[in-house]
Amino acid sequence: MSSFPDYDSIYRKNVPDSAEKDKVKKIVERTKTSIIKILQEKRISAEVELVGSTSKGTNLKGGDIDIFIVFPQSFTRDEIVKHGLEIGHRVLPDAKEKYAEHPYVFGYLEGHKIDIVPCYRIKLGDRVKSAVDRSPLHTRWVIENIDDAMRKWVILLKVMLKSLGLYGSEIYRSGFSGYVCELLVIRFGNLENVLEFFASSNRNLTVSFGNNNVKDESPLIVVDPVDPSRNAAAAVSMENLSRFRVLSREYLIEKSERYFSRQETENVRIHERGTVYRIISLPKPDLMDDILIPQVQKMRKVIFSMSEAGGFHPIDTEILVTDRINILIELETCLRPGVIRHYGPPAYSTQTHNFLEMWKNREKLRGPFIIGDRIAVEIKQERDFESYIISAIKEKDIGAHLNRLKEEIRITNPGKSASKLKIVRKYLGRTVFND
Amino acid sequence: MSSFPDYDSIYRKNVPDSAEKDKVKKIVERTKTSIIKILQEKRISAEVELVGSTSKGTNLKGGDIDIFIVFPQSFTRDEIVKHGLEIGHRVLPDAKEKYAEHPYVFGYLEGHKIDIVPCYRIKLGDRVKSAVDRSPLHTRWVIENIDDAMRKWVILLKVMLKSLGLYGSEIYRSGFSGYVCELLVIRFGNLENVLEFFASSNRNLTVSFGNNNVKDESPLIVVDPVDPSRNAAAAVSMENLSRFRVLSREYLIEKSERYFSRQETENVRIHERGTVYRIISLPKPDLMDDILIPQVQKMRKVIFSMSEAGGFHPIDTEILVTDRINILIELETCLRPGVIRHYGPPAYSTQTHNFLEMWKNREKLRGPFIIGDRIAVEIKQERDFESYIISAIKEKDIGAHLNRLKEEIRITNPGKSASKLKIVRKYLGRTVFND
Repeated sequence: MSSFPDYDSIYRKNVPDSAEKDKVKKIVERTKTSIIKILQEKRISAEVELVGSTSKGTNLKGGDIDIFIVFPQSFTRDEIVKHGLEIGHRVLPDAKEKYAEHPYVFGYLEGHKIDIVPCYRIKLGDRVKSAVDRSPLHTRWVIENIDDAMRKWVILLKVMLKSLGLYGSEIYRSGFSGYVCELLVIRFGNLENVLEFFASSNRNLTVSFGNNNVKDESPLIVVDPVDPSRNAAAAVSMENLSRFRVLSREYLIEKSERYFSRQETENVRIHERGTVYRIISLPKPDLMDDILIPQVQKMRKVIFSMSEAGGFHPIDTEILVTDRINILIELETCLRPGVIRHYGPPAYSTQTHNFLEMWKNREKLRGPFIIGDRIAVEIKQERDFESYIISAIKEKDIGAHLNRLKEEIRITNPGKSASKLKIVRKYLGRTVFND
Repeated sequence: MSSFPDYDSIYRKNVPDSAEKDKVKKIVERTKTSIIKILQEKRISAEVELVGSTSKGTNLKGGDIDIFIVFPQSFTRDEIVKHGLEIGHRVLPDAKEKYAEHPYVFGYLEGHKIDIVPCYRIKLGDRVKSAVDRSPLHTRWVIENIDDAMRKWVILLKVMLKSLGLYGSEIYRSGFSGYVCELLVIRFGNLENVLEFFASSNRNLTVSFGNNNVKDESPLIVVDPVDPSRNAAAAVSMENLSRFRVLSREYLIEKSERYFSRQETENVRIHERGTVYRIISLPKPDLMDDILIPQVQKMRKVIFSMSEAGGFHPIDTEILVTDRINILIELETCLRPGVIRHYGPPAYSTQTHNFLEMWKNREKLRGPFIIGDRIAVEIKQERDFESYIISAIKEKDIGAHLNRLKEEIRITNPGKSASKLKIVRKYLGRTVFND
């Protein structure tokens, strides 16, 4: 490894030390043994496999341990879920259940998070019965194709992505999964080659290992070598890919270590922007991020698009989840015109008479008159943002859990205190370096 | 003619009485004789023809008299213009020159406006050498195809169109020419049939007399019977056609006489609209309407589109020409945000580094950050409408004559006195009934 940046030292800081490795090894052995014992006791012919980064030697310090119980396809889905949950709860004290495509349990042993996940045994080329069935194949493929040098580069790539807020394929993160990091390094050999790939000016980026049957139109395609019709990088959002492309170019020029540790937002200078802020907030329900955050993002989109449709000219939004869900919106105005144009049928339609009749005795501010080839009137509208957006949100789906909290939505005007608020500072501090 | 509405009485009110007819006849004879005398004196073998509505018996009270001097094609363009102007000035005291496609003169005799226009003799099917060459053919075709009943309907159609502000094919009017009125009545037989045609729900309207070689994509096509590749109604704007279609339907339902006399704008109730008005004005140069008005309309479009581009969210504009040219603009705000987003290259472009370098040390309000697949910054901008629009107009072409007056543009804020201003009342009083 080159001397600047000091990749070796960054690597050592982020990889588990030998004590952690020993400890994890023991936890894995103990857990596998317990599971096997229960399977024998229940006369179930399933196998137990360590999968994920720990099994591949690409795990960051303090990483999760993923243990899969691999069932033959003769079991029903209900059976493997039932057995999986039961075994998980017996092996992990205080385990909690979590829902990916099907339920599994997770818990903590000596400070390490352990997932115990039931899945089906499939062979290369088989159709999966559940999304997690591919994991054992992924693990095997990576182990067969990676070497120790590459393992180090995977760690460094993960550290960089994590520092930049681009690591994790969960829907609310929309970044790069550990598996995608491994595939990229296996394909390009080392970190800088991976970054060169993203720094290129190709509009769409595709990585493949021979066959490519991906139909997907994502901007980034990393063909899954164990299933060439699957895009392993489907989770990566356009914004995150864009950010990584810009940052790859910058990194290759400046090679600074700051890409390997989380940057605090610089001191944000608060400028007079000649706009208004509103904060729309509601209580945070007790949900895991992967359930909650997509709903918060949906709500944010609804707020932005309804503000736009309502004529308040929103500029941008920001989310900050504390004990409440807070959505900041910056608007050109919170007092829209008191007049709105309402278009009727085109002038060639014989419906123009009905339109004129309909508006004859109604209150209007102007018209009916012709705009282009349409008949139109201008009528009065409420000007106030707060009452508009409250009722606009009420008519929209903002996700199962947040829908129930609509009555508790509160809108605040941070006014002159905006500059003191964390959410405003986060909003104004947004750069290519942070998410 | 039917008894209600009293078409006969409307007709009588608008057609020249016999005294006027006699007087016009004498003026025409006298003028033609003078012109012929000059032609003989100059040994020019041109002919003199009365064309236009007077010659066809479709003229409104006090209408213009069009006398054409028809030259053989052996004359050059310069020659016919020179002779035409010279003869015009000799025949008409205090004549002025006017520019259609080529110069001609007009003046007044006993209160009647007379045009003296040089043109080339062409036969049916010949290519025209100047746009006015078709007029003698139009006159002949109409005379051959019209009867007295139709003449009355043409008068009534003209009166209706004039009352509605839809009569005249000059560019600043964009309405129906007298010739188009004649063609419509000849084609459909009477006024109500013409209106039925416009009241239909056909998206595009076409009137033809056999052949139709018009390539034009105008919403209204009236094929010129003397040149089937020409759309005689090309001047009619989409807005005017739309207005006439809507009003044709209304008229056929209510058959009110108010469609035959200019309606004064109803008492406009001034409502609070929660918007702002600005009046942009400059001195009116001493020009004829057909030169001036297109420039004023150009200026109005520039003001609207630049206000939109500048983020002031214009609603609509109005023109009022008095001793000054006044353009009213209604805006959502005259104080736009103090921040504007400036987009850089897409994230896949290797130019992102230059963009980041460029903005590194410049003042910015936010970013550089990623929006979608683009890199962007937000920077400061002046908020004020007045200074923005003044410099925006300076950069744009608003027509040869108005360009020279840019330094004299004045912007006023009518504020609370808006409701007292004629231009605001005209603006707010706009309906399908007025232009």
